[in-house]
Amino acid sequence: MGGEPIRITAVRITPVAFADPPLLNTVGVHQPYALRAIVQLHTDSGLVGLGETYADSKHLARLDAAADAITGLDVFALNVIRAAIADRLRGDDAAAGTAGMITSASVVDQVLSPFEVACLDVQGHALGRPVSDLLGGKVRDAVPFSAYLFYKWAAHPGVAPDTWGEALDPAGIVEQARRIIDEYGFTAIKLKGGVFPPEEEMAAIEALRAAFPDHPLRLDPNAAWSPQTSIKVASGLAGVLEYLEDPTPGIDGMAEVAAQAAMPLATNMCVVAFGQLRQAISQNAVGVVLSDHHYWGGLQRSRLLAGICDTFGLGLSMHSNSHLGISLAAMVHLAAATPNLTYACDTHWPWKTEEIVKPGVMEFVDGSVAVPTGPGLGVGVDETQLAALHEQYLRCGIRDRDDTGYMQSVDPNFRAGSPRW
Amino acid sequence: MGGEPIRITAVRITPVAFADPPLLNTVGVHQPYALRAIVQLHTDSGLVGLGETYADSKHLARLDAAADAITGLDVFALNVIRAAIADRLRGDDAAAGTAGMITSASVVDQVLSPFEVACLDVQGHALGRPVSDLLGGKVRDAVPFSAYLFYKWAAHPGVAPDTWGEALDPAGIVEQARRIIDEYGFTAIKLKGGVFPPEEEMAAIEALRAAFPDHPLRLDPNAAWSPQTSIKVASGLAGVLEYLEDPTPGIDGMAEVAAQAAMPLATNMCVVAFGQLRQAISQNAVGVVLSDHHYWGGLQRSRLLAGICDTFGLGLSMHSNSHLGISLAAMVHLAAATPNLTYACDTHWPWKTEEIVKPGVMEFVDGSVAVPTGPGLGVGVDETQLAALHEQYLRCGIRDRDDTGYMQSVDPNFRAGSPRW
Ligand SMILES: [Mg+2]
Ligand SMILES: [Mg+2]
Repeated sequence: MGGEPIRITAVRITPVAFADPPLLNTVGVHQPYALRAIVQLHTDSGLVGLGETYADSKHLARLDAAADAITGLDVFALNVIRAAIADRLRGDDAAAGTAGMITSASVVDQVLSPFEVACLDVQGHALGRPVSDLLGGKVRDAVPFSAYLFYKWAAHPGVAPDTWGEALDPAGIVEQARRIIDEYGFTAIKLKGGVFPPEEEMAAIEALRAAFPDHPLRLDPNAAWSPQTSIKVASGLAGVLEYLEDPTPGIDGMAEVAAQAAMPLATNMCVVAFGQLRQAISQNAVGVVLSDHHYWGGLQRSRLLAGICDTFGLGLSMHSNSHLGISLAAMVHLAAATPNLTYACDTHWPWKTEEIVKPGVMEFVDGSVAVPTGPGLGVGVDETQLAALHEQYLRCGIRDRDDTGYMQSVDPNFRAGSPRW
Repeated sequence: MGGEPIRITAVRITPVAFADPPLLNTVGVHQPYALRAIVQLHTDSGLVGLGETYADSKHLARLDAAADAITGLDVFALNVIRAAIADRLRGDDAAAGTAGMITSASVVDQVLSPFEVACLDVQGHALGRPVSDLLGGKVRDAVPFSAYLFYKWAAHPGVAPDTWGEALDPAGIVEQARRIIDEYGFTAIKLKGGVFPPEEEMAAIEALRAAFPDHPLRLDPNAAWSPQTSIKVASGLAGVLEYLEDPTPGIDGMAEVAAQAAMPLATNMCVVAFGQLRQAISQNAVGVVLSDHHYWGGLQRSRLLAGICDTFGLGLSMHSNSHLGISLAAMVHLAAATPNLTYACDTHWPWKTEEIVKPGVMEFVDGSVAVPTGPGLGVGVDETQLAALHEQYLRCGIRDRDDTGYMQSVDPNFRAGSPRW
């Protein structure tokens, strides 16, 4: 490689939709399709870098603006690329609304993320190095993930049941756990809660503990509970949960719960941007931050978050929205190169049945994904699949994630609200 | 470039001594020679990376141990390299004593630093990219430095005066500032204080303000003052100083002064390791951290420090010990790629008359150094000069920096102590 800049010449942004089961959460239920945007960043070297992000309509518009702002820049000029995107989006700081319940993340960092990942992918290809090498080098050869359990309906209304079936009580959750662990080998378990009254979800956790005595357990009600309810649950599940994730809304509420909870509190809701760290740390509101490169500004800024967690004595885990293989590859490289990411990461991977990445690289063995050793992210796009899922996006009619509206289309009396209990 | 590892095959560590003028500080006076260790990291690619660090005897022994621990590792495996050094030095946590008055820095990070820089230098050469590109890319083409003024004797005892002459009062300091600014074009001024009673140093600052009405001014007594004295000086120099550096020892003392000082307090003494940040931030003890890759663990961890400063609302400047051209090159790449490093950096550069880096790259224009655009650090070693300064090291008899002992050899009544006033 010579030392010439590798300039961005064009960015192709393709929204896709992939089938998603009716997974329940506290604001409603997953729609029949999840949306993602696939970024293919072309350069004058001929190399193309890949990124993946949300595809809600407002985010897509911002991606287009950002792509225009960074065209012509060098893929190594990441500081300049971030500044260019920040400049272009200045004043456009309305709540991002792109990541489900993550409402206060940085717009700039969310928009930057897929471009930063794509630039690192190009860098890796240019250098013949995996992206993990650009992040300080891997400290583990495979990255462990957790079994991400959901209460769910047997089927979306009006269609045939999926193979997972219904899970609406402790027995259903344990059965779901058995299958997902049989198939993937996960060694930690997370239950998405906030769906049923807390006692029922506590019973599900106790049932999981009985069925899987050695698996660390987590419960995430997405801020469905008041501080008082949260403290009661924390007390009831002391010694059972590895961590309790976002029991209650806001840093003040989390601090109130944290002061009395036996287990660490984790968050991907009250600390989702650098600007929230100082307050959260000064109030001892959280013990574990769930990082997510999609809203923390990409892989390098996620390393910064990791370093901050290390410096301030916070644990570090990793959050997931519904995603495809480019995101998983980026998560694996990042996690592999983050020494203090010591918890199994979250992933929605088992819930999807469609993919745009060529098969063979992103495989789960014993609950872990091996770090790709090829150049860049180590994954390639199947253009036929990309075209098919883009067609599906065009057909499906969904343009913004709306778990609440979809739930209300089934149950007109449903009301989202935080806290609910 | 293929994707094969670039393995470290051998590390040559050469202690050197270069002539240093009799610069005064609160613990004594610079000895006739300053010591540095030059690291030349050889790899199986044939590429050699450069690093520079302290050369005190205990540090040299640790460098040897670390070099042995990392031989065989890939220059991209920076996380693994840090872990290997930490493993090798485990238990060896005696005060480092390698950086003058910086006594509580991390031993591991100090030892890691020159190897990390050398690995990045190799990476850059392998990729045909300047080191700044490996740090997110430069955001400025040249890095501004400050005029670093010292009280000084006309000469070391028994030898002829140097060209700078004596500076022991306000007039001498202003004269020194005129020459250094004429020659280098510096646009900010720092005075090393803690040498004379605070009123005399305040008078020197006032004289500088009169002579250079537009240059930001800084005063650094190296913790020579009690909190009460510091508050008096801060009050007297309100509106005159850009920042007041380490007026008093310790985070508690700094916090007491910071609560009453009109200007920000800066430090390279009470916050010199990641483990000190939490307390300093929670007590609002400092407004500006002076980073220094020599004890913050190299360039990538200095970027982490920068990100922490950005996240927690701290200013960021850069500290200097007496150094040669490899260190300056590393400082320039780092500063160029650090968006929030908005203060002019410190450097002892003008005070040295000998060098081991080939001339032509590290030049000051208008107080700034252009970021090298060649691969890696962009500087090369003059082997003849390296051999000569190594011979000088062997001859000079100095094996550990000892400003206090040297001062006492001249003035047996001198006592170092903090605070002195
Ligand atoms: Mg969550
Ligand atoms: Mg200082």
